[in-house]
Amino acid sequence: MQRNLTMMTDLYQLTMMNGYFVNGTYRHTAVFDVFFRQKGQINYAISAGLGQAVDYIENLKFSGEDIDYLRSLKQFDERFLDYLRSFRFTGDIYSVVEGELVFPNEPTLIVRAPMIEAQFVETAILNIVNHQTLIATKASRIVRAAAGKKVVEFGLRRAQGPDAGIYGARASIIGGCSGTSNVLTGKMFDVDIKGTHSHSWVMSYKTELDAFRAFAEIYPDNCLLLVDTYDSLRSGVPNAITVFKELRAKGHKPVGIRLDSGDIAYLSKKARKMLDEAGFPDAIIFASNDIDENVLQQLNIQGAKTDVYGVGTKLITSEDMPSLGGVYKLAQIERDGKEYPVMKFSDSAEKITNPGFKTLYRIYEKDTGKAFADLIALEGEKLPTPLTLTHETERWKSTTLENYEARKMLVPIYRGGKLVYKCPTLAESVAYREKEMDRFWDEYKRLSNPHVYKVDLSDGLYELKQKLLKKRG
Amino acid sequence: MQRNLTMMTDLYQLTMMNGYFVNGTYRHTAVFDVFFRQKGQINYAISAGLGQAVDYIENLKFSGEDIDYLRSLKQFDERFLDYLRSFRFTGDIYSVVEGELVFPNEPTLIVRAPMIEAQFVETAILNIVNHQTLIATKASRIVRAAAGKKVVEFGLRRAQGPDAGIYGARASIIGGCSGTSNVLTGKMFDVDIKGTHSHSWVMSYKTELDAFRAFAEIYPDNCLLLVDTYDSLRSGVPNAITVFKELRAKGHKPVGIRLDSGDIAYLSKKARKMLDEAGFPDAIIFASNDIDENVLQQLNIQGAKTDVYGVGTKLITSEDMPSLGGVYKLAQIERDGKEYPVMKFSDSAEKITNPGFKTLYRIYEKDTGKAFADLIALEGEKLPTPLTLTHETERWKSTTLENYEARKMLVPIYRGGKLVYKCPTLAESVAYREKEMDRFWDEYKRLSNPHVYKVDLSDGLYELKQKLLKKRG
Repeated sequence: MQRNLTMMTDLYQLTMMNGYFVNGTYRHTAVFDVFFRQKGQINYAISAGLGQAVDYIENLKFSGEDIDYLRSLKQFDERFLDYLRSFRFTGDIYSVVEGELVFPNEPTLIVRAPMIEAQFVETAILNIVNHQTLIATKASRIVRAAAGKKVVEFGLRRAQGPDAGIYGARASIIGGCSGTSNVLTGKMFDVDIKGTHSHSWVMSYKTELDAFRAFAEIYPDNCLLLVDTYDSLRSGVPNAITVFKELRAKGHKPVGIRLDSGDIAYLSKKARKMLDEAGFPDAIIFASNDIDENVLQQLNIQGAKTDVYGVGTKLITSEDMPSLGGVYKLAQIERDGKEYPVMKFSDSAEKITNPGFKTLYRIYEKDTGKAFADLIALEGEKLPTPLTLTHETERWKSTTLENYEARKMLVPIYRGGKLVYKCPTLAESVAYREKEMDRFWDEYKRLSNPHVYKVDLSDGLYELKQKLLKKRG
Repeated sequence: MQRNLTMMTDLYQLTMMNGYFVNGTYRHTAVFDVFFRQKGQINYAISAGLGQAVDYIENLKFSGEDIDYLRSLKQFDERFLDYLRSFRFTGDIYSVVEGELVFPNEPTLIVRAPMIEAQFVETAILNIVNHQTLIATKASRIVRAAAGKKVVEFGLRRAQGPDAGIYGARASIIGGCSGTSNVLTGKMFDVDIKGTHSHSWVMSYKTELDAFRAFAEIYPDNCLLLVDTYDSLRSGVPNAITVFKELRAKGHKPVGIRLDSGDIAYLSKKARKMLDEAGFPDAIIFASNDIDENVLQQLNIQGAKTDVYGVGTKLITSEDMPSLGGVYKLAQIERDGKEYPVMKFSDSAEKITNPGFKTLYRIYEKDTGKAFADLIALEGEKLPTPLTLTHETERWKSTTLENYEARKMLVPIYRGGKLVYKCPTLAESVAYREKEMDRFWDEYKRLSNPHVYKVDLSDGLYELKQKLLKKRG
């Protein structure tokens, strides 16, 4: 399903591109950083979306029809429109990989390209990376709250359109879900897909028992029964047990039941007892009613007897925070043959951007193997040993590490317009995320009021930033 | 951009379809209703998404590759997989048109088709209609709060993926936005697109004044300048005025300025004064910083001197309520050659569904021309004159109308699998929505604590529902 999303951009990108083209500055090298700011309860995020962002770049092409449409707007130079015919991305992109843990204010993707190209790719890259990182992050929070129980993504019908369903399900897997109900996502990305039957199956039969029997007959070894169409405890569970006994008599092992309404803690305890007493201690209880990380923490406290969760709306829309708000900011620009670091000023310290062509390191303590801090540095800057890390504004907060390991987090994806990165399979990204999550102390991953992970500036970057701030003042 | 979204479905739809197929009940006629329940502050919603839902049905087709994938799941009967090769929709669909005002609990789309087909189309229809109705509704709320000032949709980079950006922008137009930044939406649906320049344009020049001059030179008659890159009142507005004077000297009329950070009420008043004093009373002030209906109501109260609003994240994600939660419920099913009305039971009255093959009327008072109530009736039921409308549970609430007009709201879209509806242009849907909005008293459209619009059941439907409730009890 290769899609050409070239025209999916904000008009001002084209307005500016035409301006750079007419001014003759369009091939000047520019550097842009993608990063997100602290928002809501989020401390860490799980990066996702690079795969689709690469698809986007690979499929960039203005069609004749696109050019005709742009001409009809009567604001573009004809030479610019002609230039667009052969437009393609010729620059460099560096990015964290999918599944990487990332933190506020650090560059997670850097574009270094002729200004006209770097400007253009902003909108689609932000759209894709913002969305998928948001959902992978939400999934990670929900899966952590599930405390070892499996979580399946079930939200397609409530997703904000087809892509939000398809790529949101993919992002959920990166974040830690064990499967999805979405068949297309399953096919496209080789993911486990799950699903048995809905209320309408039950309602289409004369009785619930008839419906359960019919289902068991067709799927004797995959028999998970939805028990809440009429009354979970008085009708659904007893009927399920009847059918489970019939299945067992024929040599099959029933899978379990699904609860989809009412109080999950109460119903799961009652249903567990009924299933156990009927001789089905292995029958699982699958729960799926308005679940998110907060509900899961309460269910854990109350000892809900659930085994697997289906999570829909609140995951696929990231309901309590439906946007990550990642931005794309100019960090360096060429003028008269020389590149100058630049920054956006603001009265709020956290809204001032970091200037220059940068790179990002994750610093691990060698003795524990655990992540200690991330360090934003200027490209080419060497890290000294010992390494002193200092908080950007609260300068008295400073630590010196003797025995550390530094990993470059931004991987070359494009060089000179050529794709130099082989996108891993989704399973590989999941394995990467699992490994990297283990290198973080749990305190950083707490769902509320987490310990704040350090993201510091290198000495070189700190000095450059101070110099630019002073020059302006 | 015709897309085949056939495989974008929940696995359980296919599991059930295989079941109906194997049982031989797959061609039994089923009726499903789409409706949403009361949620959050929403009273009315603006229907959207029918256009893309029709595209979906028109492009339904399982490819050989799809079938191979499904076979690999090892849970489907080979005859069923063979049947899928020629699968298409052969049933009827009735729907409200795009731009229609709709209310909780009333059927906005009805599918009557062989069970196997009606079951299948659930997921995609809900995904599409839920999303677009949500965004059209949010746009309508924001546009109402803007109280006559224009609102432009600016959220593409924060949308939940490409479709959420593309179709969300389209839905925003249906809801009342006057344009979008999204070029692809502009091209696909013939919508006004807007946009000038970003902070990076300013930062790419040595000084803000240089950047403004360069922009004015290229776009002398479309010069809207973003003034907050360094300092809105001390740098941006004065520089803009300098450039506006130069433009005027050359015979051009500057458009205005854009404020994108800080306190919009304060900055707009100060900027308005500066522009007026410099002789530019016609230069507009465009504001675009984290705006939604609540912010707009505050800005109105404080007399902000703004002219146009750009609204991004909070509109395109419907931030305070990112899902509408529309559902798709079985209402009637054929067994042994006869169709039976069915309903889902629940302890909560509002979760009990309405049985039977139904239709929906909007009842207008003839003397005022205003909408009085919506009435859900059984298909074929005649409305008497005088017409008595009674609240479903609070039966003492009853009104009798002598002089009324009843409009059938559900329009035939498919009959026997054939598309019998010509989708209107987006502009036609906008015109329809405007006309229909005017037929509702403002009290129903208030942004918080609205007067609740009546949605009642016809006598025939009420009696059927009571009969089914009693039969079960």
